[in-house]
Amino acid sequence: LARPELIVITAGDTQGRALLATVVDDGARFAMDDPGGAYHWEVVRRAGGQVAALPVDQHGARTDLLTGMDVAAAVLTPAHQYPLGVTLHPARRHAAVRWAQRSGGLVIEDDYDGEFRYDRQPVGAMQQIAPEHVAYVGTASKTLGPAVRLAWLVLPARLVAPVVEAKQYLDRHSDTIGQLTLADLIDSHGYDRHIRTRRLRYRRRRDLLVTRLAGLRHLTVEGVAAGLHALVRLPERGPSERAVLDLAADHNLALQGLGDHWHHPGGHPGGLIAGYGTPAEGAYPAALDVLVRVLRAVDT
Amino acid sequence: LARPELIVITAGDTQGRALLATVVDDGARFAMDDPGGAYHWEVVRRAGGQVAALPVDQHGARTDLLTGMDVAAAVLTPAHQYPLGVTLHPARRHAAVRWAQRSGGLVIEDDYDGEFRYDRQPVGAMQQIAPEHVAYVGTASKTLGPAVRLAWLVLPARLVAPVVEAKQYLDRHSDTIGQLTLADLIDSHGYDRHIRTRRLRYRRRRDLLVTRLAGLRHLTVEGVAAGLHALVRLPERGPSERAVLDLAADHNLALQGLGDHWHHPGGHPGGLIAGYGTPAEGAYPAALDVLVRVLRAVDT
Repeated sequence: LARPELIVITAGDTQGRALLATVVDDGARFAMDDPGGAYHWEVVRRAGGQVAALPVDQHGARTDLLTGMDVAAAVLTPAHQYPLGVTLHPARRHAAVRWAQRSGGLVIEDDYDGEFRYDRQPVGAMQQIAPEHVAYVGTASKTLGPAVRLAWLVLPARLVAPVVEAKQYLDRHSDTIGQLTLADLIDSHGYDRHIRTRRLRYRRRRDLLVTRLAGLRHLTVEGVAAGLHALVRLPERGPSERAVLDLAADHNLALQGLGDHWHHPGGHPGGLIAGYGTPAEGAYPAALDVLVRVLRAVDT
Repeated sequence: LARPELIVITAGDTQGRALLATVVDDGARFAMDDPGGAYHWEVVRRAGGQVAALPVDQHGARTDLLTGMDVAAAVLTPAHQYPLGVTLHPARRHAAVRWAQRSGGLVIEDDYDGEFRYDRQPVGAMQQIAPEHVAYVGTASKTLGPAVRLAWLVLPARLVAPVVEAKQYLDRHSDTIGQLTLADLIDSHGYDRHIRTRRLRYRRRRDLLVTRLAGLRHLTVEGVAAGLHALVRLPERGPSERAVLDLAADHNLALQGLGDHWHHPGGHPGGLIAGYGTPAEGAYPAALDVLVRVLRAVDT
């Protein structure tokens, strides 16, 4: 458990990352996943940072490249990368920590859905290994719902005062009533119970998704060991991502294309991001039916 | 009533002002009350603005000077200026609106304790007079308590999209549960009842303060027509502000000196800011006793 004096409560994980980007030198470069989320890059840019593309492969972010990248910080999602869904390999975790220790750079460990792992033991946080070089970001917005704007940073000691000060001039402090309510929920073990229940439910959804998509011939499902989304890879010679997204939209099915998630769009293999956390419990099987129908139609 | 599409909910009024400072051009100058609150100047600076001192006299901020000041925005507290407690004179309100209309500048109307007026009819918001030139900031943090981080902006139409976008990259959106709770409180008239109750209570506190301090010979009480603080002016030849603050601290009484509130400290008349909103109801008479004792001791 982190020492309380190193924890800062923020109004959601976005604010946490924005604050971290604010306290790193203005104009400093941040290595950020490629593919990743354009929204997150813009959060860093608006807080005064520049964004450098950090490639992601089947072992997670290429932290082995950090030393040559001239960056001040690296934003990583070790538990479950978005959108590829891979887990950061132990060697890559090690490389990230070593880079931070040698360069004085900051690792921002974004554990946005670290609570939802299905197939293996929870991986320990990198923050615990190198507390002076890693800033951890955890959130209740994924576990309880986006309506709740509460997240927590576990910070290197040198960053606590600058982050608290930056937050003070952004919004003074986070909603106290919500914090007290969450504290009650944690103390009563209701929070843990809720996470266990949801993990089981999401795991069932994941299993059902994998089972229903097992019969596809050319499309493959990836990134399902954790989290709330799966990546469906499209074959090289087949329907375009755009065509599949249009077909899904015709069926009132909200999918995202992998193509929008690259720092430099174009020339990348196609894929579909299927989130399975959002539908109401009763609506999930029907949504899955539609997904199967759409994917079968293009699996030729 | 403002049109709903012009209203943006923020996590407190500080965030509201920070967002407004963010969407005005980077490096632009903001006219801000002198004396005023150093905290508020820093909010604007951290959001990319520069701060220019706008003098305040017995009629409020000297908005008649805005035309010559080369500023892009003016932050005003028309209902009750902090720390002097004066109300913005109608001619000054008019001058502010005229400046904004002619220059294209933005008036930020900070109505931080506009609900607590005691001696006259509520003054209409400047935003209603010139909706395309005035951004209104209202807050529940003064009426319900600082634990609640909910405020509202009423914006010129051209600023709605930039403000919403800026907020999206700061913290996505404000706490939904708190918003729904506040909406319920408003719909049930509980919010209005609460404000009426508090206004009556604060008015009694204000009256008691004025009564108890009426016997002072050289010290005068100002700025008590509204709000939650009074200004006690010190005579030119008398104890220094510092000496009175030290004496108050010896009596465990928290006062603020006027001296910390000038853009350029030094050489200003002395004064004490006595907030009367904070003490618990039962503790207020005793706190007032201490204040009277301290002020009498220096009223020689």
